[in-house]
Amino acid sequence: MAIEIGQSLIRIDAHQKVRGQEKYTADLFQAGMLWAGVKRAHVPCARLLSVETQTAKALSGTVAVLTARDVPGTNRQGITHKDQPVLVEDRIHRTGDAVALVVAKDKASLQKALDLISFTIDELPGVFDPSGALKADAHLVHPDHEGGNLLAGLDHETGNGSRAFADCKAVVTGEFRVPRQEHAYLETEAGLARLGPDGQLVVTVATQAPFRDRLEVAQALGLDPLRIRIKTPAMGGGFGGKDGSSVQCLLALAALNANGRPVMMIWDRKESFAASTKRLGGRLKYRLGADDQGRLLALECHIHLDNGAYANLGAEVLSQCLESAGGPYRIPHVSLHGRTVYTNNPVAGPFRGFGAPQAAFAMEQMMDILAHRLHMDPLHLRRMNALERGDENILGLTLKTSTGIGMCIEELADHSLWQTAEAWKKEAPPFRKRGKGLACILHSVGFGPRVPDYATAKIRLTREGKFRVYSGIVDMGQGNAPTYLQIAGERLNQRMADLELVLPDTGRTLPSGSASASRCTYIFGNALIKAAENLHKTLLERGASFLNGDDHLAHFVLLPGAIRHLPTGKRISLTRLAGYMARSERTATGYFRAPTAPDVSGPQFRMSGLGMGHGLFSYGAHMALVEVDEITGRVQVAKYLAVSDCGRVINPQIFEQQVQGGIVQGLGYGLLEDFKVREGHIQTEDFATYILPTSLDVPEMISIAIQTHEPTGPYGLKGVGELPICGPLPAVANGVADALGVRIHRAPLTAERVLAALIEKQGKDKP
Amino acid sequence: MAIEIGQSLIRIDAHQKVRGQEKYTADLFQAGMLWAGVKRAHVPCARLLSVETQTAKALSGTVAVLTARDVPGTNRQGITHKDQPVLVEDRIHRTGDAVALVVAKDKASLQKALDLISFTIDELPGVFDPSGALKADAHLVHPDHEGGNLLAGLDHETGNGSRAFADCKAVVTGEFRVPRQEHAYLETEAGLARLGPDGQLVVTVATQAPFRDRLEVAQALGLDPLRIRIKTPAMGGGFGGKDGSSVQCLLALAALNANGRPVMMIWDRKESFAASTKRLGGRLKYRLGADDQGRLLALECHIHLDNGAYANLGAEVLSQCLESAGGPYRIPHVSLHGRTVYTNNPVAGPFRGFGAPQAAFAMEQMMDILAHRLHMDPLHLRRMNALERGDENILGLTLKTSTGIGMCIEELADHSLWQTAEAWKKEAPPFRKRGKGLACILHSVGFGPRVPDYATAKIRLTREGKFRVYSGIVDMGQGNAPTYLQIAGERLNQRMADLELVLPDTGRTLPSGSASASRCTYIFGNALIKAAENLHKTLLERGASFLNGDDHLAHFVLLPGAIRHLPTGKRISLTRLAGYMARSERTATGYFRAPTAPDVSGPQFRMSGLGMGHGLFSYGAHMALVEVDEITGRVQVAKYLAVSDCGRVINPQIFEQQVQGGIVQGLGYGLLEDFKVREGHIQTEDFATYILPTSLDVPEMISIAIQTHEPTGPYGLKGVGELPICGPLPAVANGVADALGVRIHRAPLTAERVLAALIEKQGKDKP
Repeated sequence: MAIEIGQSLIRIDAHQKVRGQEKYTADLFQAGMLWAGVKRAHVPCARLLSVETQTAKALSGTVAVLTARDVPGTNRQGITHKDQPVLVEDRIHRTGDAVALVVAKDKASLQKALDLISFTIDELPGVFDPSGALKADAHLVHPDHEGGNLLAGLDHETGNGSRAFADCKAVVTGEFRVPRQEHAYLETEAGLARLGPDGQLVVTVATQAPFRDRLEVAQALGLDPLRIRIKTPAMGGGFGGKDGSSVQCLLALAALNANGRPVMMIWDRKESFAASTKRLGGRLKYRLGADDQGRLLALECHIHLDNGAYANLGAEVLSQCLESAGGPYRIPHVSLHGRTVYTNNPVAGPFRGFGAPQAAFAMEQMMDILAHRLHMDPLHLRRMNALERGDENILGLTLKTSTGIGMCIEELADHSLWQTAEAWKKEAPPFRKRGKGLACILHSVGFGPRVPDYATAKIRLTREGKFRVYSGIVDMGQGNAPTYLQIAGERLNQRMADLELVLPDTGRTLPSGSASASRCTYIFGNALIKAAENLHKTLLERGASFLNGDDHLAHFVLLPGAIRHLPTGKRISLTRLAGYMARSERTATGYFRAPTAPDVSGPQFRMSGLGMGHGLFSYGAHMALVEVDEITGRVQVAKYLAVSDCGRVINPQIFEQQVQGGIVQGLGYGLLEDFKVREGHIQTEDFATYILPTSLDVPEMISIAIQTHEPTGPYGLKGVGELPICGPLPAVANGVADALGVRIHRAPLTAERVLAALIEKQGKDKP
Repeated sequence: MAIEIGQSLIRIDAHQKVRGQEKYTADLFQAGMLWAGVKRAHVPCARLLSVETQTAKALSGTVAVLTARDVPGTNRQGITHKDQPVLVEDRIHRTGDAVALVVAKDKASLQKALDLISFTIDELPGVFDPSGALKADAHLVHPDHEGGNLLAGLDHETGNGSRAFADCKAVVTGEFRVPRQEHAYLETEAGLARLGPDGQLVVTVATQAPFRDRLEVAQALGLDPLRIRIKTPAMGGGFGGKDGSSVQCLLALAALNANGRPVMMIWDRKESFAASTKRLGGRLKYRLGADDQGRLLALECHIHLDNGAYANLGAEVLSQCLESAGGPYRIPHVSLHGRTVYTNNPVAGPFRGFGAPQAAFAMEQMMDILAHRLHMDPLHLRRMNALERGDENILGLTLKTSTGIGMCIEELADHSLWQTAEAWKKEAPPFRKRGKGLACILHSVGFGPRVPDYATAKIRLTREGKFRVYSGIVDMGQGNAPTYLQIAGERLNQRMADLELVLPDTGRTLPSGSASASRCTYIFGNALIKAAENLHKTLLERGASFLNGDDHLAHFVLLPGAIRHLPTGKRISLTRLAGYMARSERTATGYFRAPTAPDVSGPQFRMSGLGMGHGLFSYGAHMALVEVDEITGRVQVAKYLAVSDCGRVINPQIFEQQVQGGIVQGLGYGLLEDFKVREGHIQTEDFATYILPTSLDVPEMISIAIQTHEPTGPYGLKGVGELPICGPLPAVANGVADALGVRIHRAPLTAERVLAALIEKQGKDKP
């Protein structure tokens, strides 16, 4: 079928994946392949005195055992701050730090060698609590860091800041705690690397940012970046956890010591849990003020996040958390204070939502608390304060792009689920209480003010008459790559069978930034439209000259597989046309750079590579209907409604899947998932102790798209990737508060925590 | 609230209208106003020998009595063919022809004078049946017309035409009859005219085409067009029936004879029924052939329409009927033959759908008949033959625009109503039979190849700081005017309160063609976007120079009521800015001309002003669930599902209302409405005999928009005005056939007709 925008095209990868036929990185076995693995630290903070590798090296199955001394380059990695060693030099900063790298002939030999490596340490006390870490006498995680353990601090004032509370008639306060969250992708970290006889180092790896990886590997290992090629096959999830180097530098180092043989590294689940980044947990202190009509006047937030042992993108997450701190509301006077702190805990980093879900948990509960104080309907309070285009947001930035939060709230208010929620609550069975919870959310699209946010698309008409789309941005599984084909197909009027996809590969595709920041379809779609239109024009011109020299291009049309001259019906097949054209003629590129907002974080916020201030946001209004078991404290979500403004929808099915995936991941964050760490030691080492929602935990989910038109987006689209995960945690928390009359300030809302709150309330309720 | 695209903004005219406060033309009473009325013919065909006006003239209340001799110009009117006299000269061609015009001081005097006018005639036999009218010895309605009674004949062949039937494995035939339909708008024809002391003739009138009216009046009355001004207030419906002169020339003539006083003319319902145009009724003979897999190969259609006494747009309707004759399907070999014939019946003309509903009635039943023959599922047969972008349609024209019929069919097939229809059928109560009926439809957007299809929009920033949108295209009630404000508001970032609307007025707004052809929002929306962007740029430039001379326009933003300089937050109100600007600077225009398809009707089809061949179509897949009472024959539609591809939806509520209105009007056409004429005499003179569906007859209607992206449309929009009325008649007919096992080839499917078919079937079923 010819491709149209708005069509729920079945994903090109759907059949492969559900049948288990898709090749992920870990499936790329090669003959003669070696295995690499890491010896990790088992303590969170120590001086590394020596590493004993001789016994391991002596094994017949061992190819190489490497330590920091064997790293030819800087031995440093980190997306914006190079504070993480590839292999530990003299200091261990967290459990899971890589101390030594082993290359072996097979998996058994690898394990044997790893077991034989030992190292001596001088254990240090370490810091594990962010507020403790900021005390004057605290152990310094990175003694060289000029801020001490304060990785990044950011203070921002809009309007009169907290002085405006003096004018408020109603002021409410609250303090909230959010946990770390594990990405828990289907596919753990994996890669395959080989140093070719031509000196080319090819790393095939599950990554969100192949072009950045190339530079990361080059710097860490002291190589020429042009000697390195990063390839990304299909990926089983990323969610931010594969944005940044995991296996990349280690594997490259292994390949340099493998005598030209391919080397595979696969982290098992436990290693993935130990070594990968987590969503930043922390504390959020809020003060919110309004006039007696409910108009929001003032907001003050103090947000403290635990960054763990390395910077990763923690400072950037903090800035996003602050930017989202006020929700999708008009608040003229704002005082924002954020700190993210080095500790000897596991490394925190980007996770779908990038700081916004943490803020939404606090802000949306504050809105309900304020509504209660003012005796107002929570929906009405939100509606009257909803941002509109032309308003200034809490950073003082004028919203110039489509702003549909008001429309989302109206749609939710009109929905039968909202209309019947009170009646549904009354029908709760014995020993159950029911509640409805709202959450209004926003999420920015794109990198923000400091990093050029661009994409470069490439399309080629192949000699076989097919169109090959060179994707510059990774598809972690969310479906942006199939959407690229849909865009190219619509612009070039081709069928799916006429289109081919080249996954990101620094050797073939063009740099377009990481798969992150809800930017993938927005930014690459725009670039792709330009590339497709350039190629379309070239093909019509060449087709016209081959057909009959009629130079009126409107007389020609590009069809699936051919160009037709409309007045005569004469056609030339694209296969034939391609035969007449050089490859350079058959290749078109398109470049798009996103407009940016001013950087309001100011130059003093040096720790952020991205700065603070976005110009483009998606919005949503969510509702959870929850039922709480008064005996066990268990919270069940019965139904969930998500109304989203992400601009135009290109593929409704993929859109809905993104929303559903975000809701489920958000419900896990809200109800179950708590990545527990005690004194730097991980308590939840695997899926037996770290509990994810399964299909049985998933409620009926209704997704409604409010399709505003975003003039800067492809076909009017914004981005949907991260928005939906921001809603469930606050919606569920508000639903539980509505059901029980007790508010739980700490996530996740486990049965134990809910039951404890109920018991405490019963104690208070007694005379 | 700031305006966004995709928002169900409440129509600006909603409150006024539901409260009965809107001023329609007939509400524009003026002091000292005179009344005009028409003496009409009571026979369908006669020589007019003399008109006796002296007695009427002698009445004290009479201001003027006028006949053809008093008309200063050509005395001719007609949209493309000037064959209709303003006042009858020597031949009466239909009952209702205007013989004399009276101007009187009040309504009572008007009626008295009209009663006193008499005329002598020599009655002629006349022709009332299109096939009879084509016989060699038939009475000629217009003896001067070179085609005789054949107003227009059109034959078109694509591929091998009917020769391809030889290759078909399955061939089915059918003959169908469709009735005339009355527009039955809420507001009957009305106007108010005055000849000012400056010689300016101002006609305020319920019309779909004010700019064309100006030329029509000028020619008919021999006036300089620039002396004439046509104004259109709010309208209570048009549906094509107000496209062309009704009261316009008569009223203008009255005003020329009213001593400068305003003259009002209002047709009552009976006069409206007698004098207005009707949907063309006729006969459709079909032959459809396919291969044994169900792939459509050949189509042959013979379509005969009864055009009535004057051409109006009958030839154009015929061409549209032929263009739509094959439905939204790929059929390589087509033979189309159409005739529309002069008779002495009421005048036929455009009616929402413009020939397509008639064709759909035949074609969609043919598809079910073919499916039955091939033992195929009717939905599957449609799905496999659905047109795609890049296909050639039945005229041999390549579809270059968005083509979402396949998506509509998929959506319908996935819908619970379709999925549960068979179960629902089985639950029919006693003496009832249930059926489901499908219809796949298409409707073109725009005028077609011969008439330049353009619009010119104008927007002004007023001295008061508001934005005034000058609408060039009439809003008959369908909601295009509110949508214009939504577009202007989105582009200029203003609130509804900041926007003003100027309704079409040849003295103030710019020519943009008639409100017809599903073009209103498509064509004017495009022009309006250009005008808004031009004005936006000018205002930012002027605002920038007044604020501080920063010449980087991206630093400025247009807000509701003001321009803000983003880096400093300084603002200038639009009221203040407007004070510095001349009116010409504050006014911007935008012009858009629609792309056209080639004219395939060829030069020999001279009778059509529009030609045949469109490039842009909307599509739909409809389903009716019907229940038939076996005792009475009554057909009730229980539920109705309409899936529409009209491109992008700007206002979902107005879109849904358009779909619902079309369904209801189509159900009237399918089940109840039959404008009956016997020997030229109207049998259904009013709503006592011409039955419209009321709210109690309306089923539950579900409307789903499949939003493809049309690159040439504003925000990707096509047009929705006419599409939905094409579905109900065939969907209901197929539903009745499914319920009863008998097919009814003649519309409407009244209870009497259904009962007769049932009795006939029972007779046949007996041994």
